[in-house]
Amino acid sequence: MTLSPTRRSTLGRKRDRAATDRAALHAVLDEGLVAHVAFVRDGAPVVLPTGYGRDGDTLYLHGSTGARWLAGADLPCCVTVTHLDGIVHARALMHFSMNYRSAVVHGTARRVTGDAERLHALRVIVEHLAPGAWDHARTPDRRELAATAVLALDLTEASVKSRSGPPSDDDADVAADLAWAGVVPLRTVAGTPEPAPDLQGHREVPAHVRDVRHTGG
Amino acid sequence: MTLSPTRRSTLGRKRDRAATDRAALHAVLDEGLVAHVAFVRDGAPVVLPTGYGRDGDTLYLHGSTGARWLAGADLPCCVTVTHLDGIVHARALMHFSMNYRSAVVHGTARRVTGDAERLHALRVIVEHLAPGAWDHARTPDRRELAATAVLALDLTEASVKSRSGPPSDDDADVAADLAWAGVVPLRTVAGTPEPAPDLQGHREVPAHVRDVRHTGG
Repeated sequence: MTLSPTRRSTLGRKRDRAATDRAALHAVLDEGLVAHVAFVRDGAPVVLPTGYGRDGDTLYLHGSTGARWLAGADLPCCVTVTHLDGIVHARALMHFSMNYRSAVVHGTARRVTGDAERLHALRVIVEHLAPGAWDHARTPDRRELAATAVLALDLTEASVKSRSGPPSDDDADVAADLAWAGVVPLRTVAGTPEPAPDLQGHREVPAHVRDVRHTGG
Repeated sequence: MTLSPTRRSTLGRKRDRAATDRAALHAVLDEGLVAHVAFVRDGAPVVLPTGYGRDGDTLYLHGSTGARWLAGADLPCCVTVTHLDGIVHARALMHFSMNYRSAVVHGTARRVTGDAERLHALRVIVEHLAPGAWDHARTPDRRELAATAVLALDLTEASVKSRSGPPSDDDADVAADLAWAGVVPLRTVAGTPEPAPDLQGHREVPAHVRDVRHTGG
């Protein structure tokens, strides 16, 4: 299944960097933890970071019902998840670049109104952020669920773009041996878990927390 | 100097998370490498990842003149830089959260037309991505400079928001000792530099590359 080739999800340039593969879209989304969601408010663009989770071809976003961007009805939006994989040093300053993978999703996010789907969405979002947590911590009660706004965005209209590998210098600059060139790889790593100061029991870090060693940001 | 308290840069909620300090804004921007820039195209919001650099209270963005979003005149936009610092595990699933710092800048980016400022902006952007590189690699020539679009965004209208520290559980859940709670810290680290396969000389990794050990994404 390939990604929808509508006008706004068709890349304007560097088409060789486009992966028209749904699996690639899912992979980029699944590895990330923070999405940037853009919408239009009072005629001007706004972009905010937010958590999310994916269930099949539905992306769930959530927040407090007090958050203005979540307070309205269905929300025309664009959601982008980006992984920075490396800093690309070239012989020529014009060819300095970043290795990255990004997913851009366009659509109108639907407000989730049913309690059952809202609870399901929260599970998807929490399990995305912290796999194993849903069965460890306390499930939301009716009051907490009511205070949560959830949006669902279909992944139909989306594109994936990436850059990887060494710098793309001009042949003349390579031959002239002008400078060092290569890639400084970057990755996000998890450190030692820091227990809450007011932890009563539960002194041992559970496996689902302990085993998080590295993850995408 | 505090950040401008216009309506759209005044946080709608969690005002205790707002730092109205310009130094905090600069710190968040200076530590990041990728910004997410949102704009409106054909009436719909779009958000894309991009590199950037800061000079005083000017944020420079750049790209190829072939990139559609850079091709127009001045661009009403919103630029957000986010650092993910940790995954917050709480006793209650509703209180799971992320520790983060984010800067949101609103404004109309000005197209930089003069060659001198465009060259200056490129230097700011490259030195932000790879400090020390400007004096090591080949400077852009006239043709390369002409193929580069640069936007300048004033940092006047901006907000900083962050969360840090342990989970914020309800007292009853803390007392009930329901689950493990704490923070899994996350950070971006640089790995061993990977030389370009076609490197002729310059076998030794220069100090400005070697010394990058960790950085914000």
